[in-house]
Amino acid sequence: MKKAVIIGVGMTPVGEHWKTSLRDLAVEALLNAMDDANLDKVDSLYVGNMISGPFVEQENLGALIADWAGLGHIPAVKIEAACASGGAAVQEGAKAVMSGLEDVVAVVGVEKMTDAWPSDATRYLAYASDAEWELFHGASFVALNALVMRYYMHTYGYTEEDLALFAVNAHINGAKNPYAMFKKPIKVETVLRSPYIADPLKLFDASPVCDGAAAVIITTPEKAKELGIPKEKWVEIAGMGRAIDTINLANRKDLLRLKAAEVAAERAYKMAGIEAKDVDLFEVHDAFTIMAALSLEAVGAAERGKGAELAKEGQIAIDGDYPIQTMGGLKSRGHPVGATGVYQTVEAALQLRGEAPNQVPDAEIALTQNIGGTGSNITVTILRRV
Amino acid sequence: MKKAVIIGVGMTPVGEHWKTSLRDLAVEALLNAMDDANLDKVDSLYVGNMISGPFVEQENLGALIADWAGLGHIPAVKIEAACASGGAAVQEGAKAVMSGLEDVVAVVGVEKMTDAWPSDATRYLAYASDAEWELFHGASFVALNALVMRYYMHTYGYTEEDLALFAVNAHINGAKNPYAMFKKPIKVETVLRSPYIADPLKLFDASPVCDGAAAVIITTPEKAKELGIPKEKWVEIAGMGRAIDTINLANRKDLLRLKAAEVAAERAYKMAGIEAKDVDLFEVHDAFTIMAALSLEAVGAAERGKGAELAKEGQIAIDGDYPIQTMGGLKSRGHPVGATGVYQTVEAALQLRGEAPNQVPDAEIALTQNIGGTGSNITVTILRRV
Repeated sequence: MKKAVIIGVGMTPVGEHWKTSLRDLAVEALLNAMDDANLDKVDSLYVGNMISGPFVEQENLGALIADWAGLGHIPAVKIEAACASGGAAVQEGAKAVMSGLEDVVAVVGVEKMTDAWPSDATRYLAYASDAEWELFHGASFVALNALVMRYYMHTYGYTEEDLALFAVNAHINGAKNPYAMFKKPIKVETVLRSPYIADPLKLFDASPVCDGAAAVIITTPEKAKELGIPKEKWVEIAGMGRAIDTINLANRKDLLRLKAAEVAAERAYKMAGIEAKDVDLFEVHDAFTIMAALSLEAVGAAERGKGAELAKEGQIAIDGDYPIQTMGGLKSRGHPVGATGVYQTVEAALQLRGEAPNQVPDAEIALTQNIGGTGSNITVTILRRV
Repeated sequence: MKKAVIIGVGMTPVGEHWKTSLRDLAVEALLNAMDDANLDKVDSLYVGNMISGPFVEQENLGALIADWAGLGHIPAVKIEAACASGGAAVQEGAKAVMSGLEDVVAVVGVEKMTDAWPSDATRYLAYASDAEWELFHGASFVALNALVMRYYMHTYGYTEEDLALFAVNAHINGAKNPYAMFKKPIKVETVLRSPYIADPLKLFDASPVCDGAAAVIITTPEKAKELGIPKEKWVEIAGMGRAIDTINLANRKDLLRLKAAEVAAERAYKMAGIEAKDVDLFEVHDAFTIMAALSLEAVGAAERGKGAELAKEGQIAIDGDYPIQTMGGLKSRGHPVGATGVYQTVEAALQLRGEAPNQVPDAEIALTQNIGGTGSNITVTILRRV
């Protein structure tokens, strides 16, 4: 099996892009990443996208984006794993390189969510849950996450203030990220004063509906050398894992355990030959503050029930032992669903290249964790400085 | 790079499955394939599906199907390449095996189309075209294919009768396939008497809106041996190619050339070390009769403008030099869009195992070609008897 390295990254700002279409967002990010790698062509394209059909009446995104970016007759497909589509697309792109079948692969994650009415957006997002058993009964993602949040607080004795700390941390970091949707630091009181959208979950516990695209270019070390990419830009995809869990939350044996993330992390750590303690920064899936807490536990950064403790102790800050959401996370950078996993990859790569606005000093290893559904489809990827 | 072999196949009948949901169709096909390979677990799942969101309000199909099939915490994603989703999923599954990252991979293609109103189905399918430049102006797939059909007839001097022969051949073969939607042989007159849906394209030039699922199990030859799968059941995935073309038909330099299929076929032939003349049977994408003609030309079975000639000469029949659609093709077996590429793979594998109802004598090499959009995303896969 060949090794895979990221040699270029690109993004669009996350926000409400009323005047830019899905294809234009994707092409912008893609060309930015190709520019970063100083390339004018690639061999193959993988698109991470959850739900362009309902949102913008467009599928066949592989052909659309490769065509519009002028990439010629290359292979191009879309990868869907709900909100983990971006993370899965990065892994599929890396796999194509590792197999030896493709030399230089582009991965772009894109989502255009603001063209739909907000009520429709909530419904479309619920397609990631069990449509016949959850969506049909009106259980939105916010509602399902609120259930988990309440149960977590009850079980381990946390308060709404405790979980709000994840949002506060995300905003502190996002404020320095020019690509972030919300660039304003907030306080715990801001979160607490925001309206309940599903008790105990408040508006500021949740990530926003938004638009954006991010891209990475992946190749082998041999090809990167041949292309003359300076080694400072290489970021190795050292470990990958992915796993599913019951799609329906009601079938979950333990509501407070992201078993899919545990399995995915275990596999990724094994492939990379490292442990959780070796990781310098974590980009986890804080679609809701409760998911940040559970994610930290699932990837081994905290023991069970201690995820929120890390936030209370200040360990999740840039200068803590477990820095998370270093460029704002889903909460502050934004969560254009199918693009998020690629944004995480870009941000982790920038950290490892030493080019992040909120640089984690001497970062060598980063972990990205991307969740689809209510913990039903999770990717974990380990990136390493070369 | 490792080799990949198919060791199990499964299908559901294609039809209007009013009482069966998408998940149940997919699980049925998947478990049939696992039974065929005598397995009770797999390491990973790839789902080929075009458009479950609009049709049945469900995404995250990887988690849904793996969960419902009881496969545990495995990796599972959906692959979308419009109507070529199934063909692309087979290739991604094979790539995972070839990379060495997965040992035993299941691929299931599934589509549930009949839950939507027919007018909505036409609209949803058009998401595979250029939504902003084609769909917006009301150009349905039938309309776009009718344009190409008229131009083909005009350029090369063919008649509607000539193209009808592709539908007739498909129905002759489909009549013997227990999994086909339409099991009744038809005559040229049947096609000609059917109503125009977009002149010169008639109802019987077109494949039906329908439901169905098909699955294959892929592994390495080493693992197949270890699992004790008899060699008669092995079918090698010998070559794979995939390419895109302009998503918008108006941007195509040559309307009568499936350039993406040419590029895909060239790559697949090269990987398999064979030429078009070595292929014993072709499962091509006859979503419309015109596409069968163009596909034969693109994969090198006929010169340009001579695809329909093969039908006139009887070469596309089981006993001809270029047998196509040996189990009914999209026209008679049916075209549950995202499942079609996997049905083609299953059917080709059955031919190479000598188990097809319309057996091509001594078939050793089969080619499947699966089209997404109006020729904008095409996969070509070469299968070989081991």
